[in-house]
Amino acid sequence: MQKIVLIKMIFLLCLGCSTEPQADTKKISGDSSMSHDSLMQTMNQERKASIKTLGVLVYEGVNDLDYAGPLYVLGQLMGVERKLVSLEQGPIRTVMGVELTPDATIDEVEQLDLLIIPGGARGTILASYDEKLLNWIRKIDRNSLYTASVCTGGWILAATGLLEGKKATTNWYRAEEMLQKYDVQFVAERYVRDGKYWTAAGVTAGMDMALAMLEDLRGFDYAQAVMLDMEYDPAPPIRGGSPEKTRPGVTKMMTAMYDQGVLPLLDSLDYSRIR
Amino acid sequence: MQKIVLIKMIFLLCLGCSTEPQADTKKISGDSSMSHDSLMQTMNQERKASIKTLGVLVYEGVNDLDYAGPLYVLGQLMGVERKLVSLEQGPIRTVMGVELTPDATIDEVEQLDLLIIPGGARGTILASYDEKLLNWIRKIDRNSLYTASVCTGGWILAATGLLEGKKATTNWYRAEEMLQKYDVQFVAERYVRDGKYWTAAGVTAGMDMALAMLEDLRGFDYAQAVMLDMEYDPAPPIRGGSPEKTRPGVTKMMTAMYDQGVLPLLDSLDYSRIR
Repeated sequence: MQKIVLIKMIFLLCLGCSTEPQADTKKISGDSSMSHDSLMQTMNQERKASIKTLGVLVYEGVNDLDYAGPLYVLGQLMGVERKLVSLEQGPIRTVMGVELTPDATIDEVEQLDLLIIPGGARGTILASYDEKLLNWIRKIDRNSLYTASVCTGGWILAATGLLEGKKATTNWYRAEEMLQKYDVQFVAERYVRDGKYWTAAGVTAGMDMALAMLEDLRGFDYAQAVMLDMEYDPAPPIRGGSPEKTRPGVTKMMTAMYDQGVLPLLDSLDYSRIR
Repeated sequence: MQKIVLIKMIFLLCLGCSTEPQADTKKISGDSSMSHDSLMQTMNQERKASIKTLGVLVYEGVNDLDYAGPLYVLGQLMGVERKLVSLEQGPIRTVMGVELTPDATIDEVEQLDLLIIPGGARGTILASYDEKLLNWIRKIDRNSLYTASVCTGGWILAATGLLEGKKATTNWYRAEEMLQKYDVQFVAERYVRDGKYWTAAGVTAGMDMALAMLEDLRGFDYAQAVMLDMEYDPAPPIRGGSPEKTRPGVTKMMTAMYDQGVLPLLDSLDYSRIR
């Protein structure tokens, strides 16, 4: 992704867009007790590691919020280079039909400090059987600070073998059995950290995970600044969002719908692998 | 956006992607007491209006989550045609640097049942002074069922004059004064509905608003199905997300940062308008 020039950066810092702290050392006007510098000092005092590169995997059918949530949160790490990384050249369509042009392919990316693997549907399942992609993830993981997945992106990460014997979470749908296939222990949490591996539950859980990663990397104030920037004080209009909080009939129907799409595809892929 | 063929649709229905109900009339296997049809009947019984077209405005510097949140939620209305609508031809970059290719320009879109106006930074302010865009919004609004904004997208909607004398919300930053400019009464709520106008607070509030719209349009079960699909049972890792819940020093710094980008631009635009 192209580097942001200073003037663009100033606006990036504004208006629900980015809290990436400015290099500017000017005093904040009208508040002589608190200079920009001293605030930045506070924001960065718990800085744990220098994060220079953030890569978010995308592919045909990637879930729009799975990739955009963590990108929005972690893309606000000061000075980070953000990249959408895809399997092949050319534009892709998200599950909501948005046409994205990724910044690089897996052939072009050798190193990432943070790797995020989002979920989706058909494309996610295909990705979890794509040896070239799995090898790329293993390679990036060798030198990453954190390797993370969101939603069914956990199926891809688990398929690399990197989570073997570890605790993880994923989308609620058949979560335990999908992870057990790869000897991963499912934990029913919003997000799970096991060593350098972070995994989030379905879709919007990626934002909670990314904020926890941000707090871990840069401390409370930095994470709170980004939360304020994204006005993340959620107030869902109705109860729901997990099988426990959803009417059983609705959960059953959703499971049945997912089954109709997922199970035949998984069967055919397992079959072609065995063959 | 291209129409989704059946096989793609089945997968769209699966795995954290879409709960758009299927036309399939098969019984759900293993649950003879509940057919897919009867479930769909329940899901649609509170159906209020037929929503055929959803348009989400995008522009250079649009906030990634402002547009993707409502698109993800409302894009799951059964049979809806989703469009990203931009000011001009060609790809744009979101505030996080993602390259998107919109589906149509405002010159090509004459009618939308639902219009969503997301926020951003520099591009949002410029848009709120763009008479061609404001006229397009007024035109679409004449026949829309709902016209809505997210975050600073409320500044654009307010600039059309359509919210005059109405209640609305927007991003927390200088919210009251930004709306007062256009004789709009700021209400400090997560989202506000006044007649056909829906407005959301900053960024992630767009998801809460969109879910409330979905419930209004299709009822509780439908909204709960989409909430489960997006596993929207939020658990922010730390307290925050609104000025009230944020450390005063952090809020002050964010306000000062926003001021540095916003105020000079607003001044220059007001100046050029007067001139």
